[in-house]
Amino acid sequence: MAYEEYLKDFLEISNITVGDTVKVTKPHIEHEGMLLEKPDYSNENTIILKLDSGYNIGIDIKDAKIEKISEGKKPQIELDPVDKKISDKKKNLSILSTGGTVASVIDYKTGAVHPAFTADDLLRATPELVDYANINAKAIFNILSENMTPEYWKKTATTIYDEINNGADGIIIAHGTDTMHYTASALSFMIDSPVPIVLTGAQRSSDRPSSDAFTNLMASVNAAKSDIAEVTICMHGTEDDSYCDLHRGTRARKMHTSRRDTFTSINMNPLARIENNKVTINDTQVKYTKRNEKELSLNTNLADKVALIKMYPGISPEIIDIYVDKNYDGIVIEGTGLGHCSDDVITSITRATSEDIPVVMTSQCLFGRTNMNVYSSGRRLLQNNVIGVGDMLPETAYTKLLWAAGQTDNVSEIYEIMKTNLKGEMDTTLSQNYFIK
Amino acid sequence: MAYEEYLKDFLEISNITVGDTVKVTKPHIEHEGMLLEKPDYSNENTIILKLDSGYNIGIDIKDAKIEKISEGKKPQIELDPVDKKISDKKKNLSILSTGGTVASVIDYKTGAVHPAFTADDLLRATPELVDYANINAKAIFNILSENMTPEYWKKTATTIYDEINNGADGIIIAHGTDTMHYTASALSFMIDSPVPIVLTGAQRSSDRPSSDAFTNLMASVNAAKSDIAEVTICMHGTEDDSYCDLHRGTRARKMHTSRRDTFTSINMNPLARIENNKVTINDTQVKYTKRNEKELSLNTNLADKVALIKMYPGISPEIIDIYVDKNYDGIVIEGTGLGHCSDDVITSITRATSEDIPVVMTSQCLFGRTNMNVYSSGRRLLQNNVIGVGDMLPETAYTKLLWAAGQTDNVSEIYEIMKTNLKGEMDTTLSQNYFIK
Ligand SMILES: N[C@@H](CC(=O)O)C(=O)O
Ligand SMILES: N[C@@H](CC(=O)O)C(=O)O
Repeated sequence: MAYEEYLKDFLEISNITVGDTVKVTKPHIEHEGMLLEKPDYSNENTIILKLDSGYNIGIDIKDAKIEKISEGKKPQIELDPVDKKISDKKKNLSILSTGGTVASVIDYKTGAVHPAFTADDLLRATPELVDYANINAKAIFNILSENMTPEYWKKTATTIYDEINNGADGIIIAHGTDTMHYTASALSFMIDSPVPIVLTGAQRSSDRPSSDAFTNLMASVNAAKSDIAEVTICMHGTEDDSYCDLHRGTRARKMHTSRRDTFTSINMNPLARIENNKVTINDTQVKYTKRNEKELSLNTNLADKVALIKMYPGISPEIIDIYVDKNYDGIVIEGTGLGHCSDDVITSITRATSEDIPVVMTSQCLFGRTNMNVYSSGRRLLQNNVIGVGDMLPETAYTKLLWAAGQTDNVSEIYEIMKTNLKGEMDTTLSQNYFIK
Repeated sequence: MAYEEYLKDFLEISNITVGDTVKVTKPHIEHEGMLLEKPDYSNENTIILKLDSGYNIGIDIKDAKIEKISEGKKPQIELDPVDKKISDKKKNLSILSTGGTVASVIDYKTGAVHPAFTADDLLRATPELVDYANINAKAIFNILSENMTPEYWKKTATTIYDEINNGADGIIIAHGTDTMHYTASALSFMIDSPVPIVLTGAQRSSDRPSSDAFTNLMASVNAAKSDIAEVTICMHGTEDDSYCDLHRGTRARKMHTSRRDTFTSINMNPLARIENNKVTINDTQVKYTKRNEKELSLNTNLADKVALIKMYPGISPEIIDIYVDKNYDGIVIEGTGLGHCSDDVITSITRATSEDIPVVMTSQCLFGRTNMNVYSSGRRLLQNNVIGVGDMLPETAYTKLLWAAGQTDNVSEIYEIMKTNLKGEMDTTLSQNYFIK
């Protein structure tokens, strides 16, 4: 039996509904509290109780017995209106929510779960925010970021553009962590902005006391007020709540499945650290785009289909042929080492480039940069009109090629765009010998 | 004009051939030395001179002028026979070369480049080796590791098996670094060994004074003499020559395109450090297979075709359909976060599993472990008979699935193998909170 049904049975048999106070007994443990609604992202075999202490806990119902203590009512959302403390002296920030864990807020007063994230939810959960800025929040959509697509990127970029046009001094995007770095780099290419655009999320669902959502949001408000007018990712820098790192959107990657400090800058240090509401640039030698340096502009033209292919021993060349047959607009390869493929796939790659499909080489090492002059395998690719993109991340090369091939059909022009450092995505002065050991 | 032609012209115009003493003048620099043959892997626009100091240097011929100082003869390989100092008191080690940078040795006495690697070359280049063991070296093949295939893995495994059967107390595999970790994990599953099997390579071609080949080889000899009877990777632990790390073969990854300390253990610490010819276990709590704990056995049955697919926003589901249509034996997915895919590909994945193709989920985060119970996207995959393999690397899951699907056609049995920790490839007690920041 699937857990979902099991859970339903488990509660129905005992005639228990949301709002009732129950006692749950497991072999070595017992809990009493009010049964809550379950947020979408939590485990099917889990029920959530609001304890007297005010904390909510999730309990695995395996081997559990449940007993109704008293009848209750589904908690009603009766919330005080939020005083937004609007003031001319504060910056105007827009918080745009796209979904993910960060966008699910439990109201600790009523115990109700708000799967969609409204301005008021957010401000109630982190009332401190309004002391720091005039906050205007809205949900653009509400998806897990594994369901992001280039179409959603366009929608996000367009909303950001409108918000800035309407006077926002900084943008915060609440986003699932899974593909936040893809979105961040895609937005980097689609928007030139005079103000900061900060993506943030949470690794701990907000029904846990250990949620990192609030710290990340507070730090993002600071980043959005700063003079760093780039698309950045603002997330925990350590496992505790001591500080957040601000990563350049074209240079970051989710590197751990669950740790709060999962985001890592690759091939350069994080741009800044945010600690106690203070934004400190990590390396003052590193150039970044300053507030009002660029005019606002939007370019959401993306190619239809670009493939990202990781090389591995035994890969069949037919996979490349298929993308060629299907008229893909470009191919990004995650090669080995300095940017290599097996000789077995060279013929197919050569067919791709000879049919005017741009083929761009990156490295699955992630750190370092392609250099296809060193080995015969790399030189052969160069001779066949494949280009290496240095220290650009594969994920960034993918979003950039979608964008570049959306600007022109001419392969030389696409390559020219790919080889030009547009948003800090390639710059070997930053990556020179950079590594995390 | 391609560099290769340019270089040829460059030398021919001045009527210079290998063995001549030449003077090369560049804007701010001048070198005099004997022109050497160029190893295969070095840059086309580079010539190599043997200087009076005995060092060989590579010179970029861009903006260079060359002048013949005196005629010379192509250096003849007239080498003294090597005294292998065979003794009963030393362990018998086999060094098997598969190619890569490490297998190209320049003879510093004659200046000749030996692209293929023989026992004698090696021992002349690192005569210290014979003081530490009875060395028996042979070249199995000579390829760049980007050209490795499962067929070569089988050949390597079979040779290792024969060497151990013939009395080797330890094996060293000289291998290109690009795909060394794929080979290491493939060998881990194909062989049970009573003795250490150590893969090593070099990040700097041996025509550079800064080559790391010798340090890595010396450390590998120590590892091969140790009691760690696993398949391991032995490479520099730092940028200098201070020590080498010994990584479990199922847990390592090339993480930098060019640094000497490119190999990183993911989700566990390196097993041991090798410094001053001493092998020190890093964490005595970590269990490893000891010398003579296992009987020698070989199982090179591999499935024909397994695909490794990285997920990204905008990936087309048709790519999965194609592998199903082509009757692949299994699919490894590099999902996002805890092991997720977009809803857009679920139908195709479900078709794969319903047609009895095992689909195994890993995470492109690399660090951490899959947990597909947290979000609806993961649960949907579990319901559709996809399995997550916890803290196993995608590359290791790929070699393991090739092996598992080579043992049986029954999907449940394949999944059973995938979920069993065979060679330290999955073990959350090791990865618990392990991260490199
Ligand atoms: N899988 C979720 C995780 C999160 O919300 O951070 C997502 O990326 O949307
Ligand atoms: N591309 C080369 C690099 C090396 O030799 O390390 C190889 O993997 O074979």
